[in-house]
Amino acid sequence: MSLQDTMNALGKSARAAAHTLSLAPAQQKNQALTAAAAAISRRVADIVAANEIDMQAGAEKGLSKAMLDRLLLTPDRIEAMAAGVASVAELDDPVGKELETTERPNGLRIRRVAVPLGVIGIIYESRPNVTADAAALCLKAGNAAILRGGSDSFHSSGVILECMQEGLRGADLPAQAVQRVPTVDREAVGMLLKMSEYVDVIVPRGGKGLIERVQTEARVPVFSHLDGINHTYVDAQADLGMAEQIVVNAKMRRTGICGAMETMLVHQDVAQQFLPRAVLALKSAGCEDIRGDEATRALVNDVSAATAKDWDTEYLDSVLSVRIVRDLDQAINHVNTHGSHHTEAIITNDTSAATRFQREVDAAIVMHNASTQFADGGEFGMGAEIGIATGRMHARGPVGAAQLTSYKYVVEGTGQVRP
Amino acid sequence: MSLQDTMNALGKSARAAAHTLSLAPAQQKNQALTAAAAAISRRVADIVAANEIDMQAGAEKGLSKAMLDRLLLTPDRIEAMAAGVASVAELDDPVGKELETTERPNGLRIRRVAVPLGVIGIIYESRPNVTADAAALCLKAGNAAILRGGSDSFHSSGVILECMQEGLRGADLPAQAVQRVPTVDREAVGMLLKMSEYVDVIVPRGGKGLIERVQTEARVPVFSHLDGINHTYVDAQADLGMAEQIVVNAKMRRTGICGAMETMLVHQDVAQQFLPRAVLALKSAGCEDIRGDEATRALVNDVSAATAKDWDTEYLDSVLSVRIVRDLDQAINHVNTHGSHHTEAIITNDTSAATRFQREVDAAIVMHNASTQFADGGEFGMGAEIGIATGRMHARGPVGAAQLTSYKYVVEGTGQVRP
Repeated sequence: MSLQDTMNALGKSARAAAHTLSLAPAQQKNQALTAAAAAISRRVADIVAANEIDMQAGAEKGLSKAMLDRLLLTPDRIEAMAAGVASVAELDDPVGKELETTERPNGLRIRRVAVPLGVIGIIYESRPNVTADAAALCLKAGNAAILRGGSDSFHSSGVILECMQEGLRGADLPAQAVQRVPTVDREAVGMLLKMSEYVDVIVPRGGKGLIERVQTEARVPVFSHLDGINHTYVDAQADLGMAEQIVVNAKMRRTGICGAMETMLVHQDVAQQFLPRAVLALKSAGCEDIRGDEATRALVNDVSAATAKDWDTEYLDSVLSVRIVRDLDQAINHVNTHGSHHTEAIITNDTSAATRFQREVDAAIVMHNASTQFADGGEFGMGAEIGIATGRMHARGPVGAAQLTSYKYVVEGTGQVRP
Repeated sequence: MSLQDTMNALGKSARAAAHTLSLAPAQQKNQALTAAAAAISRRVADIVAANEIDMQAGAEKGLSKAMLDRLLLTPDRIEAMAAGVASVAELDDPVGKELETTERPNGLRIRRVAVPLGVIGIIYESRPNVTADAAALCLKAGNAAILRGGSDSFHSSGVILECMQEGLRGADLPAQAVQRVPTVDREAVGMLLKMSEYVDVIVPRGGKGLIERVQTEARVPVFSHLDGINHTYVDAQADLGMAEQIVVNAKMRRTGICGAMETMLVHQDVAQQFLPRAVLALKSAGCEDIRGDEATRALVNDVSAATAKDWDTEYLDSVLSVRIVRDLDQAINHVNTHGSHHTEAIITNDTSAATRFQREVDAAIVMHNASTQFADGGEFGMGAEIGIATGRMHARGPVGAAQLTSYKYVVEGTGQVRP
């Protein structure tokens, strides 16, 4: 069987499983999730053993320390993964939810009702836990998942997949609802990206190289974000104490996540008062490199020179660029020019400035007086997320179970014919 | 300037206009629509004169009578077009609508707010009125439109476009918010379909050839339906009088629209009682060719033989295929195998059968005791539609102004940082 035939067979069986899953009641899906979580807990030793094979191969291959850490599964991490799957069972079922109801003058009652999207392809790199997290969320929303993890985690992911399938079987649902591409052949990824007959949407999870490849090659819709070049704008009317706490959190809580602030914009009227204390607080919190424009450097020592490139860079590190802006207009303009439509924030007590910023900034999430690090499905009350999307089609912002659904119109009549 | 440069310049100016339009208040957009409608009414003579040029060229080119009729603009039709544009001004503004509000335990208030999609490409064939209808709906939802009409209607569409742009200018909005591809070169269509930097979604309006080309070549999302192979299933528990009225309407009210019924399925228990009267009623209403399976032909004279191909054919004509089914399962299975995910109907007084049909049939619209001809944005209360989509991404079913929006999350804090 050629690789293309293998992939088509995979897609076909996923499509069939998706149909069964789309009709499964909430209780049955939750039973599968609970059973999968139990299987993961029961098989900690197997997962650790498989992970050791992956870790050894990774070490021999010369993977970086950071990559090996992402690959590593300890018993604690495995239990956390099981708990994550179990917690998805607790979420509201998005399928069948009435999104809108209209009663027409002719008596037709039109309901817009959520239905599953279908088959979701998830392409990820070294983190083997995505196997459980992403599959659980797809299953919750009644979708089938086709997983394609990195070759580095092939053995670890394999055992986790077995646990997910055990859960499905235990609830009398088709194991084909969660499958993986059975080869580490990179060509299979290209095929998955073009299988529009069998795959409804692709969610890539990983580094910029992966996302770029997926965005370029995919012939099916993609939920993704390439960058998180997020700004915090400290307005003339900001509470500077609040602003200091927020920018330290937005930059330093975790520097490697997509919701981290990468550029701070400061209104010129408060720059002299705010910047010295903000820089001190950021440095104290461990921010190693602060890169400012000329005006910033004229006000604060210990700030290196930002170049044009800095405004377009996602550091994902203890690095921050700083620019002093003339006014709100320049701040909005900077954000819309250099931002990546992910998460932007304004700190101000001026309601009209906040409203303008939130209206005019083109981003999935626009915060007022809060840290950009809140850009997360869990923090938004979605319970879990499969990723964050910056596109405008279908899902924007955190992608939770509800965003993994489509809808249909269910119309009740009493014999109406159209005049 | 190369054609590609021309198209890029067009896309760039549309993107800039879309930004302006996205921030325009409802009143200003409505003012533009009202002024555009007035301009169309005022320039009836100009539009008729331009249309005469197109009609003469079309006649010389040998266009069919049906195509010439689609191309023709009479003063009455032009006034109806103006009224259509004016009526879009009366609709609710979808932009800025709060779709969902969440208050988090930490006090963050998260609102999901509708925003425009951006730039919408509309590719259509001979009907020049699409120039006004589609542009009006895009404008209402704060989007810029790039129009690409058929070459046959180039002169007629040109004057209508001038009216739309006059309306925009009259409301102090950029005329670039509604533009058209300035050439009839077919290559330009291919470029438009791939301009993902400047075009957010494509809406094709026209025959199957056009839709197929767009679906195959597009590298940007498409809202469309290829077929409307719609079924009406007359269940064992149907009110046969109601069923007769509904199937006659679903087939014969207008045979050429995408919501017309193409196949009738009848439960075996009522076939003997229902089919003779239904066939008689359909024939009396002008249905010229009824093609039945063997069981149907055994019950009714005057029915020709359906072949396998009939179940997959959208006639768009006074032709109907008829099949007798064993039970609800077979009906659902037939619909999911041969349907085009557009509009399906069940006629029954058995609520549980209706619920099962509506849940298990995979279609944008699933009707109970009503005619499939209600598949229309106007009938759904949307006021106007730009088309009907059968995909699962973003918009499904009638695409009105609300479906031409995306959303952003607007988050209000009081200084929250993430623990």
